Amino acid sequence: MKEKNNKIGIFDSGVGGLSVLKQFLKYLPYESYVYLGDTARVPYGNKSSDTIKRYAKECTEFLLGQNVKLIVVACHTVSAVALEEVEKISNVPVVGMIKPATKSALVVSRNQKVGVIGTRATISSGAYQDSLLMYSKDSKIDIHAKPCPLFVPIVEEGFVGHPSAKLIANEYLSEFKEIKIDTLILGCTHYPMLSKVIKEILSDVELIDAGEQAAVFSLRLLAENKLLQEEGDKMLPSPDVTFCLTDLPRNFKEIAKAFLGLDVEQLEIVKLAGS
Amino acid sequence: MKEKNNKIGIFDSGVGGLSVLKQFLKYLPYESYVYLGDTARVPYGNKSSDTIKRYAKECTEFLLGQNVKLIVVACHTVSAVALEEVEKISNVPVVGMIKPATKSALVVSRNQKVGVIGTRATISSGAYQDSLLMYSKDSKIDIHAKPCPLFVPIVEEGFVGHPSAKLIANEYLSEFKEIKIDTLILGCTHYPMLSKVIKEILSDVELIDAGEQAAVFSLRLLAENKLLQEEGDKMLPSPDVTFCLTDLPRNFKEIAKAFLGLDVEQLEIVKLAGS
Repeated sequence: MKEKNNKIGIFDSGVGGLSVLKQFLKYLPYESYVYLGDTARVPYGNKSSDTIKRYAKECTEFLLGQNVKLIVVACHTVSAVALEEVEKISNVPVVGMIKPATKSALVVSRNQKVGVIGTRATISSGAYQDSLLMYSKDSKIDIHAKPCPLFVPIVEEGFVGHPSAKLIANEYLSEFKEIKIDTLILGCTHYPMLSKVIKEILSDVELIDAGEQAAVFSLRLLAENKLLQEEGDKMLPSPDVTFCLTDLPRNFKEIAKAFLGLDVEQLEIVKLAGS
Repeated sequence: MKEKNNKIGIFDSGVGGLSVLKQFLKYLPYESYVYLGDTARVPYGNKSSDTIKRYAKECTEFLLGQNVKLIVVACHTVSAVALEEVEKISNVPVVGMIKPATKSALVVSRNQKVGVIGTRATISSGAYQDSLLMYSKDSKIDIHAKPCPLFVPIVEEGFVGHPSAKLIANEYLSEFKEIKIDTLILGCTHYPMLSKVIKEILSDVELIDAGEQAAVFSLRLLAENKLLQEEGDKMLPSPDVTFCLTDLPRNFKEIAKAFLGLDVEQLEIVKLAGS
């Protein structure tokens, strides 16, 4: 049953979705959340579409079992490859990462040259490219998509400030400079952590944080569906989030802090149907 | 039933174990093999011990179901964290990565200063350190262990020859130069691919390829157990390997070629008990 007091459910292949949760806490601070990270099977980005679809269904079923009012697919790979599967089994609205980021990029771009970076699965699915083409309609849009698979480990291992990160970013991104894109969609939960390095290479390019756009998109969607939580008189002492993981990764606390900007004190280890 | 005509079973969290298989094909070319890569859940290296043990058991059960005569745990993380679990349920000999590499390092080292590098799980388990201490017995051994988690994605993404690889290797390895180790155990299936870069930094250090040592160790073990396949009169036209994966990764063919030096033409996608 859809009720405004119900929680917002967010899932991701791992801890990267905490960067999306961070944006939701900023734009929708009066909501309660349940966050599911499938850390026992992370990452999804290099896996096959069939396997990603199966995992996505199991995550969705878990959140539906928590009686959520909205499902946020924080994982770009799942948003790109398996959003339809998630929508098919959900009786509540579903927000993926691609549509909000696409629309924002089209609003922001002046020269209609838009770049997209993401995992191998996200980029090869063509989902961002298709979405940009669909929403741009008549305008001529020039899309450049590129997988940047090393960005995730660079972030997770704390090498964001290391000289090697700049070299790797340059390897991946220098072609965007030549093409003269003016807008770049960060099509992976980890990439906002590399904004500074990316900006050093693409200084005049507007970066689109998909998590931020998804939060704003959800604000509108919840309001339209009369599912938005009332503002209340005072700020909550701390965000109301239940953290569920399928495995406790070794460096979870550090990564959670880096992605969310908060200490995660309590979490539950859960088992999904097929895992 | 243990029979010399039965296959050797090798399992790994993913495709990295193909570097171990390569060594087995070199030292034990007359054997037949079944290789299992748990690519649907790779990597294991950052996951918890409980999860790694569960996955290792499921892989072992699969190979036992194939009636193998020997189980080779090509994954260092499993060798470090869950070898006992594998041995407990196996009615055939089990070879892990740690003991053969340890013994070889102790034979090779002159100054008794030995380094070990591996995943976070392998190093924090202390398995290599314990093994070196145990087999060195009376001699005073100085052990330096260091996790190098970025080496795996660097190899898998084909960045071995990129300048960033050298920078990252230098970040991880420069301390070994100061300590003046003379022997370094490559405690991860992917690391032999980085030998050249590692040698540029640690030019006087002997590198121990654990996969190679495990193959030689297995040769002796099979011979002692009268399970060694006869040499036969002629070379096989191509190695006799059945490849089983739990998922088909997007860049499998390229990685397989890089690790094994062979094209993998045929493979089966299999489902493990709990996956």
